[in-house]
Amino acid sequence: MPSYTPTSADRFTFGLWTVGNPGRDPFGEATRPALNAPYLVRKLAELGAYGVNLHDNDLVPIDASAAQRDAIVGDFKAALSDTGLVVPMATTNLFSDPAFKDGAFTSADARVRAYALHKTMHSMDLGAELGAQTYVLWGGREGTEVDAGGKLLDALAWFRDSLNYLAEYSEAQGYGYRFALEPKPNEPRADIFLPTVGSALGFIATLDQPDLFGLNPEFAHETMAGLSFPHAVAQAIDAGKLFHIDLNDQKMGRFDQDLRFGAENPKAAFFLVKLLEDTGYAGPKHFDAHALRTEDEAGVWAFARGCMRTYLILKEKAAQFAQDAEIQAAVAAYRVEDAELSALTGTFSPENATALKARTFDRAALGARGPGLEALDQLTIELLLGVR
Amino acid sequence: MPSYTPTSADRFTFGLWTVGNPGRDPFGEATRPALNAPYLVRKLAELGAYGVNLHDNDLVPIDASAAQRDAIVGDFKAALSDTGLVVPMATTNLFSDPAFKDGAFTSADARVRAYALHKTMHSMDLGAELGAQTYVLWGGREGTEVDAGGKLLDALAWFRDSLNYLAEYSEAQGYGYRFALEPKPNEPRADIFLPTVGSALGFIATLDQPDLFGLNPEFAHETMAGLSFPHAVAQAIDAGKLFHIDLNDQKMGRFDQDLRFGAENPKAAFFLVKLLEDTGYAGPKHFDAHALRTEDEAGVWAFARGCMRTYLILKEKAAQFAQDAEIQAAVAAYRVEDAELSALTGTFSPENATALKARTFDRAALGARGPGLEALDQLTIELLLGVR
Amino acid sequence: MPSYTPTSADRFTFGLWTVGNPGRDPFGEATRPALNAPYLVRKLAELGAYGVNLHDNDLVPIDASAAQRDAIVGDFKAALSDTGLVVPMATTNLFSDPAFKDGAFTSADARVRAYALHKTMHSMDLGAELGAQTYVLWGGREGTEVDAGGKLLDALAWFRDSLNYLAEYSEAQGYGYRFALEPKPNEPRADIFLPTVGSALGFIATLDQPDLFGLNPEFAHETMAGLSFPHAVAQAIDAGKLFHIDLNDQKMGRFDQDLRFGAENPKAAFFLVKLLEDTGYAGPKHFDAHALRTEDEAGVWAFARGCMRTYLILKEKAAQFAQDAEIQAAVAAYRVEDAELSALTGTFSPENATALKARTFDRAALGARGPGLEALDQLTIELLLGVR
Amino acid sequence: MPSYTPTSADRFTFGLWTVGNPGRDPFGEATRPALNAPYLVRKLAELGAYGVNLHDNDLVPIDASAAQRDAIVGDFKAALSDTGLVVPMATTNLFSDPAFKDGAFTSADARVRAYALHKTMHSMDLGAELGAQTYVLWGGREGTEVDAGGKLLDALAWFRDSLNYLAEYSEAQGYGYRFALEPKPNEPRADIFLPTVGSALGFIATLDQPDLFGLNPEFAHETMAGLSFPHAVAQAIDAGKLFHIDLNDQKMGRFDQDLRFGAENPKAAFFLVKLLEDTGYAGPKHFDAHALRTEDEAGVWAFARGCMRTYLILKEKAAQFAQDAEIQAAVAAYRVEDAELSALTGTFSPENATALKARTFDRAALGARGPGLEALDQLTIELLLGVR
Repeated sequence: MPSYTPTSADRFTFGLWTVGNPGRDPFGEATRPALNAPYLVRKLAELGAYGVNLHDNDLVPIDASAAQRDAIVGDFKAALSDTGLVVPMATTNLFSDPAFKDGAFTSADARVRAYALHKTMHSMDLGAELGAQTYVLWGGREGTEVDAGGKLLDALAWFRDSLNYLAEYSEAQGYGYRFALEPKPNEPRADIFLPTVGSALGFIATLDQPDLFGLNPEFAHETMAGLSFPHAVAQAIDAGKLFHIDLNDQKMGRFDQDLRFGAENPKAAFFLVKLLEDTGYAGPKHFDAHALRTEDEAGVWAFARGCMRTYLILKEKAAQFAQDAEIQAAVAAYRVEDAELSALTGTFSPENATALKARTFDRAALGARGPGLEALDQLTIELLLGVR
Repeated sequence: MPSYTPTSADRFTFGLWTVGNPGRDPFGEATRPALNAPYLVRKLAELGAYGVNLHDNDLVPIDASAAQRDAIVGDFKAALSDTGLVVPMATTNLFSDPAFKDGAFTSADARVRAYALHKTMHSMDLGAELGAQTYVLWGGREGTEVDAGGKLLDALAWFRDSLNYLAEYSEAQGYGYRFALEPKPNEPRADIFLPTVGSALGFIATLDQPDLFGLNPEFAHETMAGLSFPHAVAQAIDAGKLFHIDLNDQKMGRFDQDLRFGAENPKAAFFLVKLLEDTGYAGPKHFDAHALRTEDEAGVWAFARGCMRTYLILKEKAAQFAQDAEIQAAVAAYRVEDAELSALTGTFSPENATALKARTFDRAALGARGPGLEALDQLTIELLLGVR
Repeated sequence: MPSYTPTSADRFTFGLWTVGNPGRDPFGEATRPALNAPYLVRKLAELGAYGVNLHDNDLVPIDASAAQRDAIVGDFKAALSDTGLVVPMATTNLFSDPAFKDGAFTSADARVRAYALHKTMHSMDLGAELGAQTYVLWGGREGTEVDAGGKLLDALAWFRDSLNYLAEYSEAQGYGYRFALEPKPNEPRADIFLPTVGSALGFIATLDQPDLFGLNPEFAHETMAGLSFPHAVAQAIDAGKLFHIDLNDQKMGRFDQDLRFGAENPKAAFFLVKLLEDTGYAGPKHFDAHALRTEDEAGVWAFARGCMRTYLILKEKAAQFAQDAEIQAAVAAYRVEDAELSALTGTFSPENATALKARTFDRAALGARGPGLEALDQLTIELLLGVR
Repeated sequence: MPSYTPTSADRFTFGLWTVGNPGRDPFGEATRPALNAPYLVRKLAELGAYGVNLHDNDLVPIDASAAQRDAIVGDFKAALSDTGLVVPMATTNLFSDPAFKDGAFTSADARVRAYALHKTMHSMDLGAELGAQTYVLWGGREGTEVDAGGKLLDALAWFRDSLNYLAEYSEAQGYGYRFALEPKPNEPRADIFLPTVGSALGFIATLDQPDLFGLNPEFAHETMAGLSFPHAVAQAIDAGKLFHIDLNDQKMGRFDQDLRFGAENPKAAFFLVKLLEDTGYAGPKHFDAHALRTEDEAGVWAFARGCMRTYLILKEKAAQFAQDAEIQAAVAAYRVEDAELSALTGTFSPENATALKARTFDRAALGARGPGLEALDQLTIELLLGVR
């Protein structure tokens, strides 16, 4: 068996909040002690990670003094320097503090909106200092439970204004960030604004500088809405907007579980890995998940290793899929080309349209063709289960 | 009590496939006889509808001869003329025939893709002949069960090519259609391409003539994905893309139910009506639903009357909401303005950013404020229940 | 308008953990200060509640000394005595402490299982001291994320042994508790044992003293599984097992929201109230919900008042439904009796079976009958919206 | 590689309606021609199946004359005799005919209820003639969309009366059937009575002859409600009620997909197979699924072969799991025994209870223990993926 041991070339990253997650949930207290950031960095480096991501307050407490901040950041940078780990992505915590209880950029309180901008700019400064090139915006509190407040349209406008402002700030400061929106359908709000990958793509088209904005799709978030994550990522790739990616797992239509990558549905995870590898995605593969609340620290590292191992196993299977003659024959047989028809459909002209309208089609034959998808899917399952 | 009797000024429309639905389902045969189109038109006119929409094959069988087609269309136009009903929207049936079993514009078979274009152009001709101004595209078979086929990215490209082609055809013919994409997350396919309102908005941004394309969001479809329909419609309005709307109802996260408007969740229906009325939506209000399979023809008309009555009742409640002093006070109190901060956040400048970053914020005070949302929501419930 | 002001005769109860909920969620810190139990009791009494329920640690901290416990309980009893509020139900917190992170009665660690029994007996003592007659068992941590542990069948056996033990304890102590199982499908565990009302009913049939056990169904929990709460409660009533009830609301198939009763779907709430009132349910109506995290203390009391008001409004509508002649005519018309056939189906005998098998049935006529359900449902909606 | 070729000893069965499914769905016509029953029997025998199950009308059309029936049954029995296939299970079609549009045993029309009994007795006669020992009752139309009809409690009583009647009929005729209830949460009704495995278990406890009734749980049905199928089957086994099983697959919380066994989530399928094999389930393993609508007849047989192959692959993996030393060490380490405490918890006595209440527990130590579940789950995933 191959060793499935990651190296920095695999570009695997974790958030400080993921391996540092203390196991608190809505019904119970933390089950694990907090671990400090430099320790997490060193452990991740040992395991073969490439980088570490953070919210501002994962590293620097919200009420830290400037001196405390500098000391903390110094220790963190020392750990980075010692280990070679990088910080490819940074983001802002706009959800833990009660000030954000009804949203940040979309709060009905103009002071909260201003504070969200203030906090994000400071956090962007921190991210830039640490070398981050991608800035993630997860609007987890941007939403409502009570639509009677009447802010739906205003909220979208406020959100847009904030994003435009932050883009100008990034450019003015020379940070060169690419902003990655991270959609989520619900939890902690009843309905979160920009709930799906599609929503974020649609919203980006309304921004002043759409080229600076892309997506950070998350496996679990799209799955919570019962949507196919590989399909969502394909649309982001099609639009040239896959800026970053959050890998984890989740039962469909369920509360936010943030499970170890591949833990719930290895088949969906396989198609995702295959898509990323086939399209040459070169960004970080970020595991935005955490060890089960039942686990101690050993469980945390088992979790982290497992995320990376499963990715590498599935990557190997994607390569095997490409080289399996029977599978490739089935994939090829699935498609039917027709040069004569394609000449008419390829480019619109009145003549082509007229000719195409005049054609007759053998509907019965088209409907009778067997595309071989059951057989192909079974081959895929057997490849996944390691019996090919 | 007001009579809640609709008139054509209310712009309520039904599809031929809705009031003509014979009550077949995956486990049982039709429970109602088919009703012919002219009869449906006359009944809808009696009930106060404004118009009637159709797929090509709702009116003209897929295997009709040209003469049969002309006779059928003639009878239909006579009924329209007699009753004053209009056909504001037309669409293509790209899902019933086995030829489309694996998709139409996104089929892996180039002949099927060509046939889908051919059929849609003919259907656009029919729609234009009937006066339709909106052309709906529901990609109900555009999707997959087996992603091993490897067509995800090609499918999006094929879909885009088809939409671009059809837009050129519409312009070349002088039809002046506005195209409205109708998203749906799943059923009849495991995963349908462009599953949500957001996905469609994102996709439109990649088209050659995005101005010709907008949305036909459907209440039930967004609800199947566990998403808020008022939120989705708000995003479509924000983007200037609410071209048409499909009203019905549905349990959240459930198979496609197509229930009578307001039948499942009157509160969500209220916020939708309020949003449409508050923003001055002037297009048709189309009820894309059908009577329960348990019902006979009398039940069909009870269903149709009920859809319209509930809309009018909720519209009245939206007006009452706007005039209720206690409610309006709560709505006003929900918002906090701050001119000084807004001066800094309104427009980006390095100076404004610097000043904003230098501000201090009283986080505790921001977090302690009570927005009054429980009280406001309870007032809304009591208004809805008719006890205010 | 009636005042919809509750009195103790309405038997409305709240948990200390509901009105005392500080608004913490998985992504953010508490937004409201903790309120002490005597204060909550006095406020609930002012609002017209009948009683207050509690987990052991809602009142007495898990690490309180005996003296502290006695002082706290004394203050609480004084508040009860002053206000006349009663404690009809008590329960154990078997979920907050990290000891229970992998279950209590179903933990794979025999020491945890023993501790859960120990803690529950002490909590039953406290409940009995406070006069509770119903003891609720919510197995929120009884479940798994990792089925590879292999404990599924053992867990059910351990759970059963614990329930049998506690029933014997209750009888031996002369407490006379009726135990009410509260099912939940998931959250905080991936899959909770006994996930639905049905599962609990099925499990009770395997206990030593099934008569001592019944259900505490919760609106939100059944709704999380996409199931109809009125249907589930009807099955509990049918089985003689509706011992207690938890009222709140929830979007279907969504994370645990615990919304104000009637806040999400007033129609489902109406059918539940109608069922309880029509069948003469005489137990406490317990609101197991909490104010939105956005709210301050004023919002908490708006929430509590709203729960009770909405119940009373819906109770009034249930009475109106029973007196509405058009509605009652539709309800009556829905049913068809047939004395001759009922004579054959009422009691099995070989002769009846033979005669029934020999009958012919007019399938077409049976299938053609219109039951009038669309019309009846629309009448119900209009009654709910207050326009009848 | 092993061949994974099934034999009759594997006791794999298919329904006539599964491999005979013509690929109709709510939005489109059949894509495959109907195949006659004897042909299906011969094909299934070739593939290594053990038996074939049927609804009455899968074999005999609802309007067949007695002579037609006898001819059809004769041909079918000849095919069985030729091939050695058996009919272990039979059931009634109480859902296709419009007569059943609002339920069968729970219809509000007494004539329909009588007809449902009549039809089921005749179908039981047919099943007995074919040698069936298990009689399945799937109440797919027993449910409601409109609860205003007010029949919830009556429906449960009618349902119970019918089941009691049929049990007496079976015994009087000497058929010796074991009845297996098959729950489903919804589709084709909005809410189906007895929606989950638990509901059916709870209902059985209210029947006159509960020993004659058990469960036919279906993978897809429980998954539609977002519930764990292995957990549900474990409860049925715990109650001694696993009489039959329906294997297929499904996305969670989604319309009824009836996918090939193991096609969606191989991990959940693995735990199910492991549970069946570990507990010595000896009944038929019935694949209640169908080929994708995209497929032709070749796809149907690829589907059928795939169901069986995947079961056998997963059975082999269950054996491997039991023999994997590292995995078994992790499973063993997951459990903690404590003889001293077990002596107190094993049997209730006042003395044991007193002693247990007097014990002190080291909560911190209990909470700190790492159960090793992340590591164990990763080992399981790697076993599943064939890299151990």
